[in-house]
Amino acid sequence: MTLRTLSEQIGLKHSCLCVGLDTASASFTFNKEVIDATAPYSVAYKPNVAFYEAGGSEGWKCLEKTVAYIRSHYPDHFVIADAKRGDIGNTAVQYARAFFEHMDCHAVTMAPYMGYDSIAPFLEYEGKWVILLVLTSNPSACDFETLTLSDGRPLYRKVIETANTWAGPQKIMYVAGATRSLVLEEIRQAAPDHFLLVPGVGAQGGSVEEVFRYGKNSQGGLLINVSRGIVQSPLGPEAAARNYAQEFAKYL
Amino acid sequence: MTLRTLSEQIGLKHSCLCVGLDTASASFTFNKEVIDATAPYSVAYKPNVAFYEAGGSEGWKCLEKTVAYIRSHYPDHFVIADAKRGDIGNTAVQYARAFFEHMDCHAVTMAPYMGYDSIAPFLEYEGKWVILLVLTSNPSACDFETLTLSDGRPLYRKVIETANTWAGPQKIMYVAGATRSLVLEEIRQAAPDHFLLVPGVGAQGGSVEEVFRYGKNSQGGLLINVSRGIVQSPLGPEAAARNYAQEFAKYL
Repeated sequence: MTLRTLSEQIGLKHSCLCVGLDTASASFTFNKEVIDATAPYSVAYKPNVAFYEAGGSEGWKCLEKTVAYIRSHYPDHFVIADAKRGDIGNTAVQYARAFFEHMDCHAVTMAPYMGYDSIAPFLEYEGKWVILLVLTSNPSACDFETLTLSDGRPLYRKVIETANTWAGPQKIMYVAGATRSLVLEEIRQAAPDHFLLVPGVGAQGGSVEEVFRYGKNSQGGLLINVSRGIVQSPLGPEAAARNYAQEFAKYL
Repeated sequence: MTLRTLSEQIGLKHSCLCVGLDTASASFTFNKEVIDATAPYSVAYKPNVAFYEAGGSEGWKCLEKTVAYIRSHYPDHFVIADAKRGDIGNTAVQYARAFFEHMDCHAVTMAPYMGYDSIAPFLEYEGKWVILLVLTSNPSACDFETLTLSDGRPLYRKVIETANTWAGPQKIMYVAGATRSLVLEEIRQAAPDHFLLVPGVGAQGGSVEEVFRYGKNSQGGLLINVSRGIVQSPLGPEAAARNYAQEFAKYL
């Protein structure tokens, strides 16, 4: 999917909601219900690979069926494998095959630690995306991501500036946690035209208003993920997704 | 497996060889042959998860069968899932289940970028290990891993020193690429009692003599991985594994 198509979908639906499929004891029936209920209010799905992997090959089968269901029934939805992979070149080639060929995901979340050659094989696919970890929403993000380098830049900023030289906003998005909304402004400055995938609204408590104030660009440029706040909502996934989409739409 | 048991196995077999099961078009029959041929000369196996994942759920089935085969037929061998995972706490719990419960691996390779809470759930398992990326063998390791921090330390050194506070050498090993053997000395200083998992000998060209000179400690403290150099060797896996084990034994 191109950046233009994704932006158009967001405009058409007046929604930048990404539904995180963090499905404990991974069940395709459950996922199908969540997907059918939330598709009108969302533009993207993000299965969290760990929750499937915990069930081994059976869990992976559920992941494959889930991705195939979205791709065939909701072909305009953007599908992100939240896998946070990252390995040397010949191994990265295999991970890219898993998510872009064996499954037809549009994007994979990736960890930057090992550098360019761990990312490069993913960038060779037309219409596919790398979503690189920059500043994550968890408390321990401060262990390494925010360390100050000898030139005064924090590590996460160096990650963006380096990855900006690998490929443009047509190929790379950045993960920027909603729980660090004040830093979103800096991240947006460093990547003015890139999509940001923002987790941490909902269960993790990030402020929606601040995400838009600091993270939005002229095209929108935001995908905001909600996982537990939808799949575990007492309102049910449809009402929860509609509420989030409407809340986000106020600022779009 | 405890550090003591692993060290004893290395002493008994006079080998610190880890056989990397980077099996393209993952086949259990092929793996079984490699494992049976190399078990007398090795103390550890390291299936590279990406090579299985490229085949989706069928590949994962092969990974499960491979790990189960090693655990039941060669219970004294140490099994490392080379997965390089790393995600926030509630997701890390799921990855730990995948590799330590669903499969009975002894260790998982992990990426440090997201910090302590991405590692912590793995440390709660008795007799299980985290093998943390520190300085990897790929060319792009220089993109981020070797960056100098404001206090003058390189990032990889900060990773070791921080992770040393999370758990001791009974729970954590570090990945240190053989292609950076001069830095091995520094890594060994920062982690005198930890096992180092050293890839990069063989196809990637690291020097065995330098790995031992700079990386060995009084207990040995090294697992040296060879993947392509064994599974793709024209000599066949048995002769290749024997040759590597003998070469390493000169310095043990």
